[in-house]
Amino acid sequence: MSETLLDLIRGRVSVESFDPSRSLAESEIKDLVADAVTAPSSFNIQHWRFLAVRRPADKALLREAAFGQAQVAEAAVTFVVLGDVRGMDKLPAILERAVADGSLPEPKAAAWLRMARAIYADPAAAREEAQRSGCLAAMTLMLAAQARGLGSAALSGFDAERVCREFAIDDRYVPIMLVAVGHVALAHPSRQPRLSLDEVLAFDRGRFP
Amino acid sequence: MSETLLDLIRGRVSVESFDPSRSLAESEIKDLVADAVTAPSSFNIQHWRFLAVRRPADKALLREAAFGQAQVAEAAVTFVVLGDVRGMDKLPAILERAVADGSLPEPKAAAWLRMARAIYADPAAAREEAQRSGCLAAMTLMLAAQARGLGSAALSGFDAERVCREFAIDDRYVPIMLVAVGHVALAHPSRQPRLSLDEVLAFDRGRFP
Repeated sequence: MSETLLDLIRGRVSVESFDPSRSLAESEIKDLVADAVTAPSSFNIQHWRFLAVRRPADKALLREAAFGQAQVAEAAVTFVVLGDVRGMDKLPAILERAVADGSLPEPKAAAWLRMARAIYADPAAAREEAQRSGCLAAMTLMLAAQARGLGSAALSGFDAERVCREFAIDDRYVPIMLVAVGHVALAHPSRQPRLSLDEVLAFDRGRFP
Repeated sequence: MSETLLDLIRGRVSVESFDPSRSLAESEIKDLVADAVTAPSSFNIQHWRFLAVRRPADKALLREAAFGQAQVAEAAVTFVVLGDVRGMDKLPAILERAVADGSLPEPKAAAWLRMARAIYADPAAAREEAQRSGCLAAMTLMLAAQARGLGSAALSGFDAERVCREFAIDDRYVPIMLVAVGHVALAHPSRQPRLSLDEVLAFDRGRFP
């Protein structure tokens, strides 16, 4: 058992105050995203996309669209995590690469393509999967940041339409959440109490108090 | 930088084959969920709920509802990760606890309650947040499993209505995904190639190839 990882998972809290004087290099931002995309993905479609907002003027714009939340601007980088509702468009090319490198047998790739086309022909299913993928990658990114000694804050309160307009985001990409990442200022918030396990975990049948 | 955590994040792959002979104790299942609920949560509402399916007959039922996917039944436990679309109902009590233990000042708690009520009065917003919370907790659970030497598989293909019917899940809980967890059988799948970073990460403006 890796106590180190468990300690890091348990030690992660949403940062309320970042050190605005410390930036991250482009290579550090890329490393975070490279770890984030190890999250699981339905048929390997990888609906997730990341817009890294790091210039002060852009962070100020984003902060305005996020109802003034300070972390957005104070963090070294704030990611707009997006989901591609037309993620399926890339699946044939994705499967070709997997077949070419030997990680996926050709008949399985063909079956996946048929199944994925059937499932994601429904726009609601495509949208839900895009959101799910984005969230899984976002959580992985936050823990990867934690492992690097950085802090993060997930923010779901923002004006999505305004973000898309200000940052020239095509409407095939749905903003899912903002993830601010940077060096933590001195004051760490304490974790608020969670619901008890009995309130959130049921065995055998889905009855919750 | 914690290489251990980064190695674990990078080493996680979706398990194709679990060892069906190895079970997990109830305490181990609880420990996994206790780690999962350290994920970030909007206003600490904690929309996530977990139904742990572990009895062979129940896993067989769940497998049928998941289009026969073998991992569902082979895994020691398959979690139905749920989101409570009426999560807000519990927020007053949640905030009281945080005020009582000193982790949240009373005026902030009152402001949070007002804001959360305004935001989640919209059923679509409530549902999206329930899905987001469930996904963040699911990803944390998968990495906590990895840290314990266990494997996991996230499965989004299943008949949600049937799962709710068979497992007596109230319609306030939306099934978000299945997460199968258990001891990994010998053969590990190799990770399929991901899209390149240039395809999923944009700087400054949201333009993707």
